[in-house]
Amino acid sequence: MSGYQKPEAGPGGLRLHLNENTRGCSPYVLDRLRQLDATAASIYPDYTRAIERTAEWFQVATDEILLTNGMDEALFCATILALRGIPDGEAIVVEPAFDVYEACVRALAGQTRHAAFRRDFVLNGADVLGLVTDRTRMVFLNDPHNPSGARIPQDTIGAIAAGAPDALVFVDEAYAEFASGSFIERALGEFRNVLVGRTFAKAYGLAGLRVGALVGPRPLIARLRDIVPPFSLNSFAAEALVAALDDRGYIDEYIAESEESRRLIYEYCRRKGMQAFASEANFVLVRIGPRASVAVAGLAARGIFIRNRSDQPGCEGCVRITAGHVEDTRRALAALEEALCDAR
Amino acid sequence: MSGYQKPEAGPGGLRLHLNENTRGCSPYVLDRLRQLDATAASIYPDYTRAIERTAEWFQVATDEILLTNGMDEALFCATILALRGIPDGEAIVVEPAFDVYEACVRALAGQTRHAAFRRDFVLNGADVLGLVTDRTRMVFLNDPHNPSGARIPQDTIGAIAAGAPDALVFVDEAYAEFASGSFIERALGEFRNVLVGRTFAKAYGLAGLRVGALVGPRPLIARLRDIVPPFSLNSFAAEALVAALDDRGYIDEYIAESEESRRLIYEYCRRKGMQAFASEANFVLVRIGPRASVAVAGLAARGIFIRNRSDQPGCEGCVRITAGHVEDTRRALAALEEALCDAR
Repeated sequence: MSGYQKPEAGPGGLRLHLNENTRGCSPYVLDRLRQLDATAASIYPDYTRAIERTAEWFQVATDEILLTNGMDEALFCATILALRGIPDGEAIVVEPAFDVYEACVRALAGQTRHAAFRRDFVLNGADVLGLVTDRTRMVFLNDPHNPSGARIPQDTIGAIAAGAPDALVFVDEAYAEFASGSFIERALGEFRNVLVGRTFAKAYGLAGLRVGALVGPRPLIARLRDIVPPFSLNSFAAEALVAALDDRGYIDEYIAESEESRRLIYEYCRRKGMQAFASEANFVLVRIGPRASVAVAGLAARGIFIRNRSDQPGCEGCVRITAGHVEDTRRALAALEEALCDAR
Repeated sequence: MSGYQKPEAGPGGLRLHLNENTRGCSPYVLDRLRQLDATAASIYPDYTRAIERTAEWFQVATDEILLTNGMDEALFCATILALRGIPDGEAIVVEPAFDVYEACVRALAGQTRHAAFRRDFVLNGADVLGLVTDRTRMVFLNDPHNPSGARIPQDTIGAIAAGAPDALVFVDEAYAEFASGSFIERALGEFRNVLVGRTFAKAYGLAGLRVGALVGPRPLIARLRDIVPPFSLNSFAAEALVAALDDRGYIDEYIAESEESRRLIYEYCRRKGMQAFASEANFVLVRIGPRASVAVAGLAARGIFIRNRSDQPGCEGCVRITAGHVEDTRRALAALEEALCDAR
């Protein structure tokens, strides 16, 4: 997709730049994958069980969910539904945003209109609704928001969905496992135009296996079922998904580690007088200031990769650090301390 | 996708209904998959090596190929390129055809026009070109053709591509490994509007892992690169692909078994006075006549699944039997003999 740059990292370093689980998937998942036989590779996947298990996990019916080849395919298929057959269809993206939103819109030959957060990543629903035209067919919202970790209040999402009834509102909840509350219940109960996207890449440690989900009201999911290809997940992804849901302990432990990691980052920043944005995701956006790029390079020189977000609106001088395992976070903060001292 | 019915088969039977490799992927591929660690599951896939290896395999440059999540995604992304932003865009499908062509067109809100083969699956290029209108943006061709196994001569494909310069001509070569010759060289050398789709599902035994490829001239591939999601293949699919290409012996052996299986099916049909269409794919279309559905049911009762194609144009009374491993074919023919005797 255009505009999407795969972020680079040297081999063998500590990857804190993509919010992956640095310890890998759970040992139980790996064990289940290793038990798959040659036929699992050679016959078309049947992931009925994975759909049932995931529906149960999100407490929705099996016709209120679709599994996708990662969140990317969820975003892509939703965009197709919204923009197909329309010349100059428009979508609204709140910046800064995941590159793939705009890439999906461009892939469908649509146009993007950009909304902005108010100060410190507070979203005002009226700012989004002010961009709606008679060609607007989609709105992308991201809660918790990447890269800030900030929440968009449910009432703000609801007001946008109610105020733009001809647009499909996509709520990207990639990081919902680290946050309190999901929009799923309201999307299913109150709206006809809201889809929730979920991924198993982050909390579940399955980014390499590409597993995502679309959750929404039945009529919307039925229309999307006509778009999502019939064998999106491969057999290994489907097996890994079910195994990951069977090993809740691993997920809960990672979520707890992430909370503690965020606490350590906040504490470090407070001590240093740097702004750390309160995050409900497995990363923290830290405003280092003019030395941000020096800090990122200094960490990279020490084999630790974090993401410079300084070029994004509202993120001047900011880096995003994955807040996962506590041991990784301690290493990253110690390296940051050194890098900032060197840069003084 | 709409209109696509996943064909059913009971558990544990002999699956000769989807042209899969019934022995599974090669043991070498499985071994390589079992060596993948927990990190392969948890970090975003990097399949640069898989792209290089596959480009080499097809003797094209790395910017003349894109890997996709199975042939389905290759078809889907090509359809998006052809039909995006256009109200009432049209695509031509030669019937009988793989359901996914029409499903892709519908997913993009396009219209399908249906061309037909002449008798015995001979395609007349003029019949296709006669359907071209000023809204035609795509033509799907399938060579070798499923379910007949017939070839479309390269000059026919070339004449269609030259006669419909505003349409994207997609040559689905899912079964090319079993046939003599591919359109890849001509697609790259002579045309600006021809894409070749390939899959590793069939000859390579990777249907469960979902690996496909789009091959075409650089400018077309560059435009498709902006559409295909950045992480379409998961880590296990990418690893399996490279491993499968490293084990050429396994593929060659399967191709040889398939040739012998087709010979056995032809011979059986000749003896029985049934028409078997000459096939350059790993299946044979056999005209059983009015007893076709009884034969399919009789085989299913014996745990062998073949595909009834009687409802498709030009296939009245026909079944499609996967022609893979010789032992499977002998079992299928013995069971067919019994089923036909029972039905007498």
